[in-house]
Formats: sequence, C-alpha cells, structure tokens
Amino acid sequence: MTKLLSKRSLKAGLPPGSLVHLGNNVREKADITIINYNETDFRLNKTEEAGECLSYIDPSMVTWINVEGISDAGVIETIGRHFDLHPLLLEDIMNTDQRPKMEDYGDHLFIVVRTLLLENGGSRVVTDQVSFVLGRQYVISFQERQNDLFKPIEARLGNGKWRIRKMGADYLVYSLIDAIVDNYFAILEKLGEHIEVLESQLVASPIPETLRSIQAMKRDLIFLRKSVWPLREVVSGMERGESDLIEASSRVYFRDVFDHTVHAIDTVETFRDMLSGMLDIYLSSASNRLNEVMKVLTIIATIFIPLTFIVGLYGMNFKYMPETQWVFGYPAAVLLMIIVALSMVRFFKKKKWF
Amino acid sequence: MTKLLSKRSLKAGLPPGSLVHLGNNVREKADITIINYNETDFRLNKTEEAGECLSYIDPSMVTWINVEGISDAGVIETIGRHFDLHPLLLEDIMNTDQRPKMEDYGDHLFIVVRTLLLENGGSRVVTDQVSFVLGRQYVISFQERQNDLFKPIEARLGNGKWRIRKMGADYLVYSLIDAIVDNYFAILEKLGEHIEVLESQLVASPIPETLRSIQAMKRDLIFLRKSVWPLREVVSGMERGESDLIEASSRVYFRDVFDHTVHAIDTVETFRDMLSGMLDIYLSSASNRLNEVMKVLTIIATIFIPLTFIVGLYGMNFKYMPETQWVFGYPAAVLLMIIVALSMVRFFKKKKWF
Amino acid sequence: MTKLLSKRSLKAGLPPGSLVHLGNNVREKADITIINYNETDFRLNKTEEAGECLSYIDPSMVTWINVEGISDAGVIETIGRHFDLHPLLLEDIMNTDQRPKMEDYGDHLFIVVRTLLLENGGSRVVTDQVSFVLGRQYVISFQERQNDLFKPIEARLGNGKWRIRKMGADYLVYSLIDAIVDNYFAILEKLGEHIEVLESQLVASPIPETLRSIQAMKRDLIFLRKSVWPLREVVSGMERGESDLIEASSRVYFRDVFDHTVHAIDTVETFRDMLSGMLDIYLSSASNRLNEVMKVLTIIATIFIPLTFIVGLYGMNFKYMPETQWVFGYPAAVLLMIIVALSMVRFFKKKKWF
Amino acid sequence: MTKLLSKRSLKAGLPPGSLVHLGNNVREKADITIINYNETDFRLNKTEEAGECLSYIDPSMVTWINVEGISDAGVIETIGRHFDLHPLLLEDIMNTDQRPKMEDYGDHLFIVVRTLLLENGGSRVVTDQVSFVLGRQYVISFQERQNDLFKPIEARLGNGKWRIRKMGADYLVYSLIDAIVDNYFAILEKLGEHIEVLESQLVASPIPETLRSIQAMKRDLIFLRKSVWPLREVVSGMERGESDLIEASSRVYFRDVFDHTVHAIDTVETFRDMLSGMLDIYLSSASNRLNEVMKVLTIIATIFIPLTFIVGLYGMNFKYMPETQWVFGYPAAVLLMIIVALSMVRFFKKKKWF
Amino acid sequence: MTKLLSKRSLKAGLPPGSLVHLGNNVREKADITIINYNETDFRLNKTEEAGECLSYIDPSMVTWINVEGISDAGVIETIGRHFDLHPLLLEDIMNTDQRPKMEDYGDHLFIVVRTLLLENGGSRVVTDQVSFVLGRQYVISFQERQNDLFKPIEARLGNGKWRIRKMGADYLVYSLIDAIVDNYFAILEKLGEHIEVLESQLVASPIPETLRSIQAMKRDLIFLRKSVWPLREVVSGMERGESDLIEASSRVYFRDVFDHTVHAIDTVETFRDMLSGMLDIYLSSASNRLNEVMKVLTIIATIFIPLTFIVGLYGMNFKYMPETQWVFGYPAAVLLMIIVALSMVRFFKKKKWF
Repeated sequence: MTKLLSKRSLKAGLPPGSLVHLGNNVREKADITIINYNETDFRLNKTEEAGECLSYIDPSMVTWINVEGISDAGVIETIGRHFDLHPLLLEDIMNTDQRPKMEDYGDHLFIVVRTLLLENGGSRVVTDQVSFVLGRQYVISFQERQNDLFKPIEARLGNGKWRIRKMGADYLVYSLIDAIVDNYFAILEKLGEHIEVLESQLVASPIPETLRSIQAMKRDLIFLRKSVWPLREVVSGMERGESDLIEASSRVYFRDVFDHTVHAIDTVETFRDMLSGMLDIYLSSASNRLNEVMKVLTIIATIFIPLTFIVGLYGMNFKYMPETQWVFGYPAAVLLMIIVALSMVRFFKKKKWF
Repeated sequence: MTKLLSKRSLKAGLPPGSLVHLGNNVREKADITIINYNETDFRLNKTEEAGECLSYIDPSMVTWINVEGISDAGVIETIGRHFDLHPLLLEDIMNTDQRPKMEDYGDHLFIVVRTLLLENGGSRVVTDQVSFVLGRQYVISFQERQNDLFKPIEARLGNGKWRIRKMGADYLVYSLIDAIVDNYFAILEKLGEHIEVLESQLVASPIPETLRSIQAMKRDLIFLRKSVWPLREVVSGMERGESDLIEASSRVYFRDVFDHTVHAIDTVETFRDMLSGMLDIYLSSASNRLNEVMKVLTIIATIFIPLTFIVGLYGMNFKYMPETQWVFGYPAAVLLMIIVALSMVRFFKKKKWF
Repeated sequence: MTKLLSKRSLKAGLPPGSLVHLGNNVREKADITIINYNETDFRLNKTEEAGECLSYIDPSMVTWINVEGISDAGVIETIGRHFDLHPLLLEDIMNTDQRPKMEDYGDHLFIVVRTLLLENGGSRVVTDQVSFVLGRQYVISFQERQNDLFKPIEARLGNGKWRIRKMGADYLVYSLIDAIVDNYFAILEKLGEHIEVLESQLVASPIPETLRSIQAMKRDLIFLRKSVWPLREVVSGMERGESDLIEASSRVYFRDVFDHTVHAIDTVETFRDMLSGMLDIYLSSASNRLNEVMKVLTIIATIFIPLTFIVGLYGMNFKYMPETQWVFGYPAAVLLMIIVALSMVRFFKKKKWF
Repeated sequence: MTKLLSKRSLKAGLPPGSLVHLGNNVREKADITIINYNETDFRLNKTEEAGECLSYIDPSMVTWINVEGISDAGVIETIGRHFDLHPLLLEDIMNTDQRPKMEDYGDHLFIVVRTLLLENGGSRVVTDQVSFVLGRQYVISFQERQNDLFKPIEARLGNGKWRIRKMGADYLVYSLIDAIVDNYFAILEKLGEHIEVLESQLVASPIPETLRSIQAMKRDLIFLRKSVWPLREVVSGMERGESDLIEASSRVYFRDVFDHTVHAIDTVETFRDMLSGMLDIYLSSASNRLNEVMKVLTIIATIFIPLTFIVGLYGMNFKYMPETQWVFGYPAAVLLMIIVALSMVRFFKKKKWF
Repeated sequence: MTKLLSKRSLKAGLPPGSLVHLGNNVREKADITIINYNETDFRLNKTEEAGECLSYIDPSMVTWINVEGISDAGVIETIGRHFDLHPLLLEDIMNTDQRPKMEDYGDHLFIVVRTLLLENGGSRVVTDQVSFVLGRQYVISFQERQNDLFKPIEARLGNGKWRIRKMGADYLVYSLIDAIVDNYFAILEKLGEHIEVLESQLVASPIPETLRSIQAMKRDLIFLRKSVWPLREVVSGMERGESDLIEASSRVYFRDVFDHTVHAIDTVETFRDMLSGMLDIYLSSASNRLNEVMKVLTIIATIFIPLTFIVGLYGMNFKYMPETQWVFGYPAAVLLMIIVALSMVRFFKKKKWF
C-alpha cells in the first residue's frame, strides 16, 4: 500500500526553508551531470560534488545541471547559494510531494513537474517529482531517482545537427518537459491496455477480483490526475509568456506541450468514465446472475413442491383411504403429478422465465 | 475493440517536429486535388505528386489544395516547405488523434476538426481528423482517408452562380467546416434512431444484451463528445475574428456554424442523459422481475409447506395414532388442508401480493 | 415517440442559406397579420400574401407583422428581401429546432424563443419555435402554428388606454416574450400538479407504471430545460442593452422578464430534483417489499422445515423403532414439535422479524 | 402538500404591472406602522390607511413604513404613487414567490428577501417574502403576514442609546435583513436537531418512516436553498456598494450579513450532504437485513434438506430394504443424520456465516 | 454527537456587535502572553489582565499578544478599545464558528483561521477558531483553548539567530498560519492511516461497523473541508498583496502557505474520493456475499428437491405399486437418485456455479 502522504509532519515546528528530504528514495549520493553547449561546442562532465560541478559552468554557453538524487541537503544548498535561490524554493525541491507548479522569482523560474512510473509489473502507477530552475543561460533539473527520460535529449544535445543546439535555455526546459509529457502517453497506453483486458474479463466472467482491479485502477487514476491536471496551468502560463525568460519564439513549442497535456488529461478523464461504466456493468451483471440463480431455484422448487405434497398425501397411514386400494391408484397418482408438473411448466413459459 | 490511443509512444524520444504518421489508415499514396477559382474562372487538377501540385498555384485566384491520405511524409514536407509551415504544425497533421483546435501562426491559421463516421453497420462511431491551413489566398485540407463530405462544395465551386465563387478563402474554410458539422447531425440522427430502438426494446423485454448496447453507446458518446466539444471553442474563436485572415463579413457565417456546433453538443448531452435514464429503467425493471419471481416462489412455497407438514404428520408410523383409525380421518385431514390453504391465500390477498 | 431531431440531414450538402422548412407542422399557407399603431392610431389587416402585407407598412407608425405558418419559403423570402434580412437569418426561421438565441445584425436584432405546449392530454411537453426580427420601427414574428398566446397583446394594442401604444417596437417585443414566459408558468403549474399526483401514487402503492411516468417526466424536463435555459442569456443580453435598438427605458422590463425566466429555470431544476428523490423512494420501497416478502417466506419455511423433518423421522419403516411402539409416542412427538415451533417463534421475535 | 408554484397563471394575459396578489395569506386589511426617528427624536404611529400613513412622513427624519398584509392593492398603489415606484416593482411586491434580488431604480433600491418559518410542529419549512424599498431618507418594508422578527429593532429604535438612531436608512435596512438572516440560524438549528433525531433513529432501527422523513427533509432543503442562495448575491451587491444609497461606512455591516449568509448556505449544503449519507446508510442497512434473513433461511434449509431426504429414504415401502430389518438400523440412521448435520455446521463455520 | 451549529440563536434579537461568547469551551480567565521583539531585543510577559498586558506594548518593537481563552468579554473589549477594533470584528472573535476569512479594515487586517484537533482517540476531527489582528507593528491572536501549535514559534522568536526576528509583523502572521497549516498535514496523515486500516478491514471481512466508520469519516471530512477550503481564498488574497500591511518581500512566503493549503484541500478531496470508492466496494461485496449464500442454498435445494420427491413417491401406500415388490426395487431407486443428483451437479458445473 502506498503511503498517501509523505511524512510532512516530520517538519512540523521547523522554521520555513528547512532542508529536510521528504521522499521515499534515499540515495546517499547525488549524481550530477553538467552539460555546456552552444551552436558550435558541447561539453559533458559528471561528478558527485556540487562544488566541482559549479567550476564547470561557462557563462558563454548554455549550462544544464542535472542532479539525480536529492537526499543530500549539502548539494542542494551549495547549488542554491551559487545561483541565489530562495530557501523556500530549495525546500520545495526536497519535499517531493509537490503539485506541479510554476513560480516566477524574477531572474529565474521554478517549475515542478511530476513523472509517471509503472511499478508492480505495470499494475500500479507511482509518481516522482522533477524540479526545474530556468535562468537566463542555465537550467538546473532535480530528480528523486535515476531514470532514462532525459537520455535522448542528452544525445540530441551531443549531436550538432539538431535545432536544440541553436536555441536557448527555455527551449531546453521545453524539451525536458516534452519528454516527460510524451512519457505520460506511454504510461497511459499501458493503462489503456490494462483497461481493455479488464473489459474483456468483464464480458467473459465477472469475478470479484475484476471488481477489485477496477477499483484499484480508479484509485490510481485519482492520484495520476492530481499529478497531471495542474500541469495544464503551468504550461499554459509558460505559453502565455508571462516571464521574459521565455522567448516569444519558444511559445509555439509550449503551446504544443499544452496541447499534449490537455490530451493526456482528456484521456485520464475518459479512462475514469470508462471505469465507472465498467463498474456499472459489473454490478448489474452480478445482480443479473443472482436473478438467474433465483429463477432456477424458483422453477425447480415450485414444480416439485406440489408433487412432493401429492406423494406425501398418499403416504399417509389412514386406515380408510379408498384411492390406495384402487388397482389403478398408483398410475392415476403419477398421471396427476405429470399434469401438475406440465401446467407449472406452461405457466413459466407464459411468464417467459425459460 | 478500438485502440484507445494511437501509438504515440512510437514517438517518445524523437525530437519535436518529427514527421511520423500516427494513424490507422495507411494509404501508400496521397490523392491531391487542386482547385483555383475566382468570380470568373475555375480550374481543377488532380495529381499524386506534391511538386506537381504546387505548379498549379495561381496567385491571382483562391487556391484550395485537398490532400487525401497523409501517411506519405514527403508530400506533407513538400507542401509545408512551400507555404513555410512550422514543423510542429506538420507533425500535428500526421498525428491523427488531435483534439479540435485553432492555432494562429500570424500569416496562416491551423485548424483541426474531426469528422464522424459510422462503422460496424452503424453501431459504432469512429472519428477521423481533418486539418486545415488557411492562408490569405489559399486553403489546404488534409484528410486521413477519402470521404465524400467535400464533394458538394467542389460541385458548388464549379458552378459560377453560387456565392462561394465571389468570396475569399475564409468562406471556403467556413463551407468545409459547415459540411463537417452538417454531417454530425446525420450521424446523430442515426444514433437517435438507435436509441429509440433500444428504448422500445427496453419497454418490451429488457435482456442483458440491451444493457450491453446501452453501455456501448454511452462509451461511444464519451469519445464523440471529446471530438465535438472543443470545436465550440475553435469556431467561437473564428467568429470573434481574432485573426485578420477572417473577414468581418464572414463572421456571421462562423456564428452560424457555432450555433450548429452548440446544437450538436446539446444533442450529445441529451443522448447521454437519456441513456442514463434508460440504464436506471433497465436496472429497476431487472430488480422488478426478481421481485416478481420471488413472490411466486414465496406464495407457492408458503402454501404447500404447511400442507406437506400435515401429510407428513399422518404418514408417521406410531402404533397408537387415533386419527388414522377414524372412518372420516382421511376426509377430515383433507378438509383441514383445504382450510389452511385458503387462509394462506387470504393472507396473501390482504398483503396485495396477487 | 417524438422525433429527437428534426430532419436536418435533409439539408446536408445544400449551400448555407437554403430555405427548406425543417419542422413537423406543414401548413400550406401562411396567415399574416399586420398591425400599425402609434399613440393615436391603430390599423389591423390580415392577408395570406406577403406582397400585399408589405403594402400596409406605414413608416410613421410602429409595424408588427405576425406570420403564422412558415413552410412557404416564398413568404419568408419576400419579407426577407424587403427588410434586407441575411439568408442565414431566413434559414434559421425555417429550421424550427433552434436553441433560443439573439443575434445582432446591426440595424435589426434576430431573436429565437421557444414556446411550450402540452400534448397527449397534458402528459407530454412539446416545444415550438417563435422567431422575432426587431427593427427600428417594426417587429416581425414567425410562428410554426397558430396559437393564442399573442391574442391579449393584439387586444391591448387595439385599446388606446394601455402603455403599449405609447412605447416603441422594443416594448412590443418585450410584451410578446413576456407573454411566452408567462405561459411557461401555466405549463409548469400543470407539470407540478402531475408531479404531485405521481407523488401521492408513490406513497399509496408504487407500481412499475409510476416508475415509467417518473422517467418519462424526467425525459420531458431534459427537453424543456434545453428550451428554457438559453433564454436566460438572450434576455440578459437584451437587458444589458447591448444594442441601441432597445431603449434604456425599456431595460427595466427586460430585467423583469429575466427574473421570470430565472424563476422558471429554478422551477425546472426543482422538479428535476424532486423526480430524482421520487425515483429513490420508488427503488427503496421496491426493495423494501422484497425484504418483506423474503421475511414471510423465511419465517414460514424455517418453522416448518424442522417439523417436517420430525414427522419424516417417525415415518421411517425401520423394524425396530422403540418410540413408535410407545402408547404416548404420538402425543410426545406432537409435543416435541410444538416446543420446536415455539422456540423458533421466540427466536424470530428476538430478532424483531415480526 | 405545499403548492409548488403560486398561481401565476392567473396573471397570464394581463399587461405587465398589473397588481394582483399572488400569495396564500389573504388578509383583508394591511397593518401599517410608521416610525420617524433621528438622533434625538422618535415617533411611532399605527394605522390601516395608506393615505393617513403618508401624512406622518417627516422629511427631517428617517422614516420607516412597515406594511403587514399585502393583499390590498389600494395600499400598495397609494404608497407607490407617493414614492414614485415603478409599476413592475409594485407588481413584484404582490407576487410573493419572487427569488431574493436587488434592483437599482436610481433614487431607490428594491430588495426582496425571504423569511423562513416552521410549520406542522417544526417538521415543515415554509418561506415568506419580505420586500424593502430603500430611499435616501426612508425604508418601506412589505410583509405577507405578521411576524415578530422586526420587534426587537422597533424596540432598539425606541431606545436612544443604540447606534441605530445615529445611522441612516441604509443601516436600518441592514438591521432588518440581519434580523432575518439571524432567524435563519434559529430555523437551521431546529432542522439540525431534527436531523440528529433521524440519525439516531437510523442507528437504532431503520424503518420505512425514517426514509420518508429523510426524503421529506431533503425536499424541504431544496426549497430552503432556493430561498437563501440568491441572497448571497443580493448582499454581496450591497457590500460592494454599487449604489450611493449605501454609505461607505455601512459596507462593513453588509459584509457581516454576507458572512452570515454564506455560513447559512454552507450549513444547508452540509445538511444535504448528511441527508445523502443517511440515505446511503438506510439503504445499505436495509440490504444488510435482507442478507441476514437470507442467511438464517439458507442455514436452516440446507441443514434440514439432506436430513429430510434421509428420513424419506427409509420411509420408502420397498419390500426388500435390508437396512430397515437391522436391529441397529434406526440408531445407525440417526447417527448418519447427526454426522451430516455436524459437517454442514462445520462447512458454514468455515464460510464464516455464523 | 457534535453540535452541528453553535447556539447562534442565543443572539437573535441582539444588536450587531454584541459580545456574547458562542463556543463550547468556557474558560473563566484568559491567559495572555505578550512578546515584544526586534532584531536585537526580545521580551516575554504573561498576565491574565488585559489592562496590564497593554502596558507592555513597546512601539519601537513588534508586539505579539496571544490570548488563550475568549469567554471573558472584558478582555476582548479592553484590547479592542486600545487598538480601535470594530465592534463587528470583536463579535466575530467571540463567535467561534466563523468560516476562515480575511477582512481589510484599512489600518489592520482581521484574519480567521481554523485549527484541526483529533478527539475520541483520533477517530473524530473537531475544529477550533483562531483569529488574528495584523496591524502595522503588532499581531493579536485569539484562541478558544490552549494548544501547543505556537510554542515552536515562541521558541524561535526567543532565539536571535532566526530570520523571524529580522522580519515584521506580517512575517509573524505568516509563521503562525504556516504552523496551523503544517498541523493540518499531521491530522491528515492520521486520517490517512485510519483510512488504510479501514481499507484492509474491508478486504479482510466487511462488517456493518466498517460501513459505519466509513460514513462517519465521510461526515467528518465534510466538516473538515468546510474549515480548510475557504482558507485558500484567504491566503491567496494575502499573497496577491492587496493590503499594504503585507510587504512585497513576504508574498513569496504566503505563496508557500497557499501551495500547502491547496495540497491539503487536494488531500481532503482524495480522501473523499477514496471513501466513496470504499463505500462502493463495501456495498458490492455485501451483495456478492448474498449471491454466494443464495448459490449454496440453490444448489443444495435443487439437488435434494427431486430426490426427496422420489423417496416420497415410493413412500406412498398404494396397494398396487409393482416397483415396491421387486427384489431390486430399492437399489434401482437409489441408482435413479444417484443419476438425478449427478446430472444436477453437471448442470451446475456447466452454469459455472461451482
């Protein structure tokens, strides 16, 4: 069972801006990748020391610092001091249950986005936080754990032929967010396949486990929705270009991410509607089975109850029962029972219970 | 079963603007129709080559390029380069699961609309994407597969008496969108008839298949709604005339399409409400049948259970049972049973179970 | 069964502005009433010819042309040409399934309102379209079929003592819309009475027909709501006086109609809430009956099942069954059964099933 | 049963502004109280004649005219003529099913508020209309029937020590509305107590009457909500001080009433949520009882059915049935039955049905 | 059972601004703490007299007056007179069922927030009101009862190294509200754990008590939501810096509280969704158990009913029944019954009821 809330209460009573990691993935060390690039040059360095990383910054190039692992408050503080980041911003980087948001700090933007991951062999969705700081010439990204979403962008930066090398830091942030949103569709596709499997199970033979799976998916979608929905506002704010850190020429790209985000949200809503519909089908097919069972019981019971009464009747031990002495008493009784049974069957046929 | 999402994940990791066709209808070649017209002249050419098609463009006339089949990235790129279209725009043309939208690129508008089609003998609704690029003197339309919606407009263009020959490219786009929206009503009428059939089935004899059909229609309407709802915003944006590519004199026409779109959305919502009501009726009539079945069982069982007890009583083999020795023991027992049965029947009559 | 949509598909493929009557009430001829009035004079003429009607127009007076019956495209076109009405406007007059709306054409307003009518002896609500064109000195009203809603206004115009003779064309439109909205309350009152009848039926003895009536009313209210809800926006727009065709002094009257419209909408919503509550009561009282039936079955069955076992026991034919040979075997068995029956009854009493 | 709508249809066809009383409480005569006050003086007069009442107005003081009973059109007209009130305003005073609203007539405001009353020994909520006309130096209030809500304000006006004597007419209107809203809480408290009684009934033993009471309260809350909800907008409009008849210094008081109104609305919504929850509990506890009944039936029936079969078996009259001839045949059969019964009991224990 | 409303009706009829304590926790005396601080100095005094407390105010420092216990109207009035607070403001302090709100009185802000408390061993949530008055150089906080939420802030103020000593009164208010909102998460975590316990109970064995707990939590969340939801608007208003009492430099802190508040509201909504899902699971698993019980009954009954008929048949006492005289009559009858039983079992297997 996932923890519904990370242990925010650990921080109750601490002054604002205290750097305590509130996440589940404690990595001892942070892996830091520093990439400097412009149209002609490209340099990539890796380190585990925040101090060392800062020495690689080249003001004539765009700098991307990618920090994987955020439980080491020292790294966050060192970077924060160098780029003059607000203590609340640093605190938010380490509290990894933030909603997606964008905050404008004047000379830099702080953006929180959530990535989706599948766990438990694809049946559970969990979310991780990715924080971006976008400055004039730099982008810093913080991730809770290592993942491969940003690898293709690293590769594209390494190859001079792509547009990304000619664009500024805002385009880099766009590319990173775009990679995250594209990943949403990969996850949603998997969920969609899971829903289709559940749906065909439902048609074949609805069992309580199907119900439990539907409910589990509904619950997962509640969390997933919480992670994706606010991104809409974030990207829309960037598209409207409220900050001058985002060039007018980049807005068309953020509009594109906005479209994709809306599309993802639409899909989540559609999934929710479909699961609700499946729940209805499950419940009504369950009550349908009950009806069917009851009908069989009723038919068999109501046919045999009168017959059993008749055989009981002639099982009575009265001394004077004329019928029992007749030669054709037995066949007559059997005939009577056949007549009763047949008229019962006819009654049910008329009621359309067969 | 329809794919819930086209395989967007195929594109994960690719840079933005990559032209990969994400649709289900792969046509090897594109059919291109180029129409040039003004008040006096009209020329129609057909080709399969994008390069050839561009040679037909006549700057003194309004040009309409209609491309049927969009899996050939070469065609899209050639046209895109000639009209200076943004790579993201071209990408959107080839991703055929876009929501309806309008994007203003300054000297041209990009409009995405979805057409509705009936499949499976009219019981399934599927949607196709139609993209328009509206420039000063030209309209380019891209369709996934061939359909006959635009044929009457071609015919009207060919005949000089119609207003459309005197109007500009914006009126042409209006006419094309109007044709698509008019087609919505044809589809909705068919669905309405289907709903009425289901409704009369429901009154006659509700069977589980009826339920399944209702649920399938509800699901279809979820998708249909996703395709139609955003069109409202698109057309409203065009009516407000935010772009100068749409003449003030054309706005009244877009207002008309807006009205029709709202009407179509209203109808979809009404259908959804009706289907929900039908679901309620189905469920309550099912539980009604259960009640009826239970009542028959209860009446027959409760009448015969005491009688069967009595016949059992006189079937006991006690040596000393005075009643069995009486001459009128048997008729007395039968009389007792008749009295018990009649008082049971009276009890049920009082309870109004008959 | 009402047609859910009028046959809009008949028009698919026709150019916009084509005049085809899309309604159910085909009247061969239109009845045209022309009233000219000012503070001192009043003239009323009736004709069936559009041309003749135009000759009665007197520019020094307010003119009201009331057209009853709109299937004759010639009449609509003749009037349209004289007052310079847009083809789309004329088209909307003849498509009688429009939502209520107001469109500003500069020198005239186009207003669509829907009237309510009761059919089937008051159990079905149907709606008709009334279109108004409000110009500087004239009002033209188009109705699908003849009705008496406007008769009192005609009478008031004929009598010089009323305010209406001193006011302009905007006040006339207000009076006509006010008459339509007042009629809503008459219809809603009838529906309210119908709901109260259903409610008392529900308390007395809920039968499946009650359920069907509730569902039918819910469905009717869906349609009724579609007809009334958009009127709110229409009248609100007129109250805000966005067009100079409506005098500032008339706005207080439109505010009054607005109040009435909101009141009508409120009533419709209340009816819907009440019907939903009645549905809940029906379903729970149905399941209540099932419980009661089951309880009777259970009580009778569980009392007699052990007794029947006992009588069966002593009906066995074992050679050596000491009890059957006892002198008091039979009374003892009967006593045993009485004890079992009584303890069963006590058990049920404790469970409060009686 | 309350009338859902007052008989508005009585007015259909009458010109706007016609004074017809549409309410249920016909009082032959109106009781009019006229209070003149300023910081130093206070005069109170009572009359039944509108003409006489006007003679008491003193332009150097604030005047409050309180009219109780509104079925006498003459009184309304006389007062209306003196203060130059619009015919539509006078009409609204007499139509006592108005929604709460505020209308700005320039030199006076027209405010409609609804009071709540408990009838039927506190189990039914009904609402009355109170109309206010707020002018520069006067307030006129119209009530359908006599109630004691305004008595404390009369008393405070009579006593020179209170702030109210130093403030203008707007503060008087505030005080009157405040008294009405304070009364809402008295009513809501009573309803809350009623809900708590229902809730404890529900826990103790849910009977169909509980369900009926819950549904009746839900229905009452629908009407109550209609009466309170629009007041929010009314008071908010007065707080924003859109009219200069309300002094800036009085706005803080209207903000206070606004708070109370929102609080009352919140409480109504909470009640609705609670009643929905109670409905769910009722329904699930009813289905719970059914389950319990079914379980007892099933257990007893399934234990005895095999036993009854066994005793029937040895009740057969075959000539050659070896078991019946055994000396220990009978005890063996009884032992067999005990074994069967015990294994049935064990099966149910394993299924946790006990 | 909590009182749904505090006894507001006690105040009906009193003039506005009357100081009557409407809360449940009557403390005879108020505990007043006065803290004066600036960057260099810190003074803390405790008293029970309002008069004495005022003498400690030092205009060169920031003053925080924390009043615990608000039933003594004298204390509130004395403080109110000194700081020139509006009577309505003082009234709101003593009515402890206010919704969270912020009111701007020009030279001071009045802020109402609600704290959450767990009672009944953590199973019930109750809320208390905390009121703040924020002036240029002072903060006054009023609490109904003593709690430890503000202790850490007192401690931080006592220690010169923290930022709070260098900031103004607005930062102090922020810190206090932040402490309250942080506490929300502690409460929500406890509720979340409670929900998880309920959820695992639901999976293990759903009993009616589980249902009652779910409903009780749903009800608690309704109240909790009412307490937290309006805080969103309050903090958002402070973040937007509508009052100049809040420095531009403090806005980033209020934005942080805003984020936390939205997060808390999100969590409450998620809890509500989860509880609804659990309710659905409960109900469907209850109906599932019914189905299972019915199936066992049906299978056993339908297998034995025909068998019991057969044994009854050969229990009849007809003189001429050839089968009973056969040597193999008994084994043949047993064989017949075995065949019937097996074909029944096969029928059920085919129906998949096993």
